[in-house]
Amino acid sequence: MFQNLPGKVYIREVSPRDGLQAEGKFFPTQKKAELIRRLAAAGLPHIELTSFVNPKWIPALADCAEIAAMFSALEGVDTSALVPNLKGLEGARSAGMRQVNVFLSATESHNKANINKSIEETFTQFAELIPASKEAGMSVVGTISVVMGCPYEGEVPPARIGTMARRLAVLGVDFLMLGDTVGMGTPMHTARMLEAVLPQFQTGRVGLHLHDTRGMALANALTGVEMGVRCFDGSLGGLGGCPYAPGATGNVPTENLVYMFQGLGIETGIDLEALLETGEWLEKELGRELPSAGLRAYMARRKAPLH
Amino acid sequence: MFQNLPGKVYIREVSPRDGLQAEGKFFPTQKKAELIRRLAAAGLPHIELTSFVNPKWIPALADCAEIAAMFSALEGVDTSALVPNLKGLEGARSAGMRQVNVFLSATESHNKANINKSIEETFTQFAELIPASKEAGMSVVGTISVVMGCPYEGEVPPARIGTMARRLAVLGVDFLMLGDTVGMGTPMHTARMLEAVLPQFQTGRVGLHLHDTRGMALANALTGVEMGVRCFDGSLGGLGGCPYAPGATGNVPTENLVYMFQGLGIETGIDLEALLETGEWLEKELGRELPSAGLRAYMARRKAPLH
Repeated sequence: MFQNLPGKVYIREVSPRDGLQAEGKFFPTQKKAELIRRLAAAGLPHIELTSFVNPKWIPALADCAEIAAMFSALEGVDTSALVPNLKGLEGARSAGMRQVNVFLSATESHNKANINKSIEETFTQFAELIPASKEAGMSVVGTISVVMGCPYEGEVPPARIGTMARRLAVLGVDFLMLGDTVGMGTPMHTARMLEAVLPQFQTGRVGLHLHDTRGMALANALTGVEMGVRCFDGSLGGLGGCPYAPGATGNVPTENLVYMFQGLGIETGIDLEALLETGEWLEKELGRELPSAGLRAYMARRKAPLH
Repeated sequence: MFQNLPGKVYIREVSPRDGLQAEGKFFPTQKKAELIRRLAAAGLPHIELTSFVNPKWIPALADCAEIAAMFSALEGVDTSALVPNLKGLEGARSAGMRQVNVFLSATESHNKANINKSIEETFTQFAELIPASKEAGMSVVGTISVVMGCPYEGEVPPARIGTMARRLAVLGVDFLMLGDTVGMGTPMHTARMLEAVLPQFQTGRVGLHLHDTRGMALANALTGVEMGVRCFDGSLGGLGGCPYAPGATGNVPTENLVYMFQGLGIETGIDLEALLETGEWLEKELGRELPSAGLRAYMARRKAPLH
């Protein structure tokens, strides 16, 4: 087992954007800044900072310009921000961002619900948005959501994701993130999807954004890393729920990814202790427990006397 | 990927014993009986019924004789009960049990905390208990706890589990269950442990009892099934906490195992819908949510209109 594992993987921390976006109330800008500084100090190689969306739609990220300006040139850490359109791109450019993230869904229903466009309308928009991003000197991440299962349409065929990956590559997308947004994917589905996608996109530039809703996230990550995937999204403490299943766990906890990769002998560059301390701090600041029960298990373990 | 998967696996449902044992208050005998009947109707091939322990120590299982007598000969379903000693064995025999489960821990500290004996004292006792079980016509499951990590002693070396497996085989144990009791195991550790254990025990008779404390359970199960393990413990809704980390998730939810194996094209014989309905019923009877957030995600998914 495990004869062909890589020496290292690249973990993108999404709690400041994806995680806090799902919070009911606005997390103060200075606290966000402290979260980002703590994550950077814990060794996260990439931090998803914010999203340049209309604050009417996502009030939690109303400080996107300020946060992006603070951290667009963070020393030694890659940072990115989501941009839904040219207006968002202009905001990201003004803030000095070097990487932007464009996004669409694998199903018409989810794309409509999320960004109120058809998939073709979204690709039409991308044909303008992606080249404009690159002309502004930014690299582009393309994220496809609900790649394995959709709350409206059920299972998503792997071949469709292969086709979408190809189209994004042709449009100039530099990195591809595959989002199992509602955690319906299984290891077999992950394998079939990657078999469809990897020939369409530079393998080292394909990442997995997994949710742990049904406990599959790390089994799917394991499948991915065995098949050549080298990039994984995580969210500290599992911050970020699943809007379609209240109470259900959402984003895979970053600490669990780090723990598994450490166990596999794969470098992440992340200091697990510092990450867990950041989790403790974040729980205090949010005034509630983070979704990941595991966070408390690590902490109990650290505090337990060994005898 | 996944070229050598088996056609089917055997899932042992442990919620009536392992799960309810961890509950603070006594779950009424008639409700327990209904739980077991519902699990049997959902197609679980094996149900761990109870434990013949002193009710002073585990009041939640004070009705062990009654439950065992009701279900020791359940049609079409294998059932088992834990026996810590000859007195427990006599109780199981009187109740008509056909399979008993003896248990010890992989570390001295955990064994002492759990059964107040040294490991050698436990093996000495096994040398009497196991032959006595077989003479009484019962098959014997041997469970080793904290096989990958111990809350007191940290990581457990795989070679030690290989040695213990060999000793249990020599003593006549028919089936071996390897318990990652505090969910510290990773896929690599699982692989190394199985490499040490499988040559010492008939491969098809080795099972994994996994905890999802750090989200590793299904990644470890996937590793196991790829290496030849065909038996897995699960607990409906993740019932059964981890006593060393309050609030931490414990047993791997049976529904997540079934979902993953279905995805892998592996038969479990279990009707996922009926299992989830049993979970809904159990939540009502317990008056609280089961630990597995996934249970609610499946339910939300089932209730959501598809459009």
